[in-house]
Amino acid sequence: MSWELTRADLPDLARGAAFLGTGGGGDPYIGHKLVELALGEGSITILDPDEIADDLFVIPVALMGAPTVMIEKLLAGHEPLTALRHLEAHYGRQADATMPIECGGVNSLIPLLVAAQTGLPVVDADGMGRAFPELSMETFAVYGVNASPIALTAERGEHIILDTGADNKRIEQLARALTVELGGSAAIAEYAMTGADVRRTGVPRTISMALSIGRAIREARAEHRSPFEAIADALAPTLYSHVRELFVGKIVDVERRTEGGFARGRAKLVSADATDTSAFEIDFQNENLVARRDGQLVAIVPDLICVVDQETAEPITTETLRYGQRVRVLGVSTPALMRTPEALDTFGPPAFGLTDAFVPVEELS
Amino acid sequence: MSWELTRADLPDLARGAAFLGTGGGGDPYIGHKLVELALGEGSITILDPDEIADDLFVIPVALMGAPTVMIEKLLAGHEPLTALRHLEAHYGRQADATMPIECGGVNSLIPLLVAAQTGLPVVDADGMGRAFPELSMETFAVYGVNASPIALTAERGEHIILDTGADNKRIEQLARALTVELGGSAAIAEYAMTGADVRRTGVPRTISMALSIGRAIREARAEHRSPFEAIADALAPTLYSHVRELFVGKIVDVERRTEGGFARGRAKLVSADATDTSAFEIDFQNENLVARRDGQLVAIVPDLICVVDQETAEPITTETLRYGQRVRVLGVSTPALMRTPEALDTFGPPAFGLTDAFVPVEELS
Repeated sequence: MSWELTRADLPDLARGAAFLGTGGGGDPYIGHKLVELALGEGSITILDPDEIADDLFVIPVALMGAPTVMIEKLLAGHEPLTALRHLEAHYGRQADATMPIECGGVNSLIPLLVAAQTGLPVVDADGMGRAFPELSMETFAVYGVNASPIALTAERGEHIILDTGADNKRIEQLARALTVELGGSAAIAEYAMTGADVRRTGVPRTISMALSIGRAIREARAEHRSPFEAIADALAPTLYSHVRELFVGKIVDVERRTEGGFARGRAKLVSADATDTSAFEIDFQNENLVARRDGQLVAIVPDLICVVDQETAEPITTETLRYGQRVRVLGVSTPALMRTPEALDTFGPPAFGLTDAFVPVEELS
Repeated sequence: MSWELTRADLPDLARGAAFLGTGGGGDPYIGHKLVELALGEGSITILDPDEIADDLFVIPVALMGAPTVMIEKLLAGHEPLTALRHLEAHYGRQADATMPIECGGVNSLIPLLVAAQTGLPVVDADGMGRAFPELSMETFAVYGVNASPIALTAERGEHIILDTGADNKRIEQLARALTVELGGSAAIAEYAMTGADVRRTGVPRTISMALSIGRAIREARAEHRSPFEAIADALAPTLYSHVRELFVGKIVDVERRTEGGFARGRAKLVSADATDTSAFEIDFQNENLVARRDGQLVAIVPDLICVVDQETAEPITTETLRYGQRVRVLGVSTPALMRTPEALDTFGPPAFGLTDAFVPVEELS
């Protein structure tokens, strides 16, 4: 069902988006302040993907590059809206709605900012079903919607249209190189599609899901219930219905290195239970990619590996992981459309240089 | 007067374009073979800039990056024409004519290739009046025509539109970064303008001039006359009327280094006359930039410093300079519109990091 999102929903949505960021995706809290400012006492119409017209023209918007840098620049600007307007001009057609390309991290908020600025509705779906580091890692791309043409805009008034046809990896390469030249971040509009395309290629209702995760955590804290049970309850009716506690413990080591513009590294944990001597490791590349206990796989991309505070369930990003943190690691199953062979080719283990085969988190002990 | 260019003109035009390349601009000889193939027995209409309509819509085309790489790729492709078509689509208007942005080197041939493929006429003017290494080093830009929007295309079907408004330096930076990512070269269409703009901002009749230089050299050789007198005769009725022999001698040293994507270096020469002990040096950055005799300035950018074979007057590019070559160095004056303070800001000595002030070659001893 379509619904109205108001300012009061934003803190919950940001918390849920941080959870779905699985350690990456940028900090949504600064983004939510921007949306709050633009929205005021108004509301944003969130369209259920099952209820939209087949020919609804949807233009998603996002940030690319270092999101925190961009968010700070954005305080004075309208870059995502400008990117959307340029892509509209390129198509010679106005958007009927906008949409996220990513439901984890800051990019879940950017379409809401454009919606607050314009009154456009936002389709409750996205193309990652979580956070991923590259523009091409999209269910949209997997199922035949092209990233091309993409509009990029940056703070000095640069406007760029890139088109590489069906080659979505190529557009990621070109846009990434340009983003570096543009000062490290850019606003983008891409993956323009119809309502029928959204239903065929998108991960449905991920805005609602982020909101319900964030709300469940907040309400459980207020009522002194377990936020972890609340997260499980919030996920139960969604396409992400399996959630499992992978580990509870303390971080004893974090290795980090920057490679090819990505923050890669590994976190090592020991159990909170002194009788449990197992070693738990998480490898990350911006997002958490794979978790192992004593070398045995317990969860792997694209399934969600969410590191949260042991007591409050507050999501912890890979860049803020540090020695001594007491955390819980949750594994969450992803929808079937994110686990097909085509999807796994695009954003499964081999896409990140991992040699492990994908095994659904619910089948791993 | 407007005129028809045929296949028989191409070798002369290529030789003249190599002369106007002042050591850079890429090798026009491969480009001329391509035009020859596309042209067959047909002809290309060359429009005199004084005779075109004020509202003629002109879209120049060129190559960017490493021209020899691109030319080889081009043998199978239509990238410059594709770039022109994309810029037409972006404007929503078809070009009435094309034009060079550069009259030295390979880029003098690329508009002729597009003309041979389409039947479009070519305006007899350009925006450099020689060869320069950067997209922004244009009289078009100096006098108020923007490079933006620019269309880039490359061999894997990439289509890009860049727009940085009036910031022509910025578009050079972005297009340069993209060209590297595109494999080192791209075809471009940019500096779209009207016939009135061409008259106000272009260097007129540089295609005719290249042709007459190349023809003069060929005819002089065939008739055993001095090709150097023939060059002077060919230039006399043009805006480049002053030509001077700066030095005759042998190359005794060439230093080269690659910096920021440019071939920089210095060539040292000694006189052919044993009684003359002076040291002659040419500094280059793709093109020859400054020539000194015993440390005294004898010619400096944007005036032309052309190194040619001592006997045949065949132009020698900076990349083929080598020890032992016997050469003549000619200095050629450039038109007044290339020597204004605004023009010198854009492509005079400071634009190349030189601290010397510009002095016209005809005022230097």
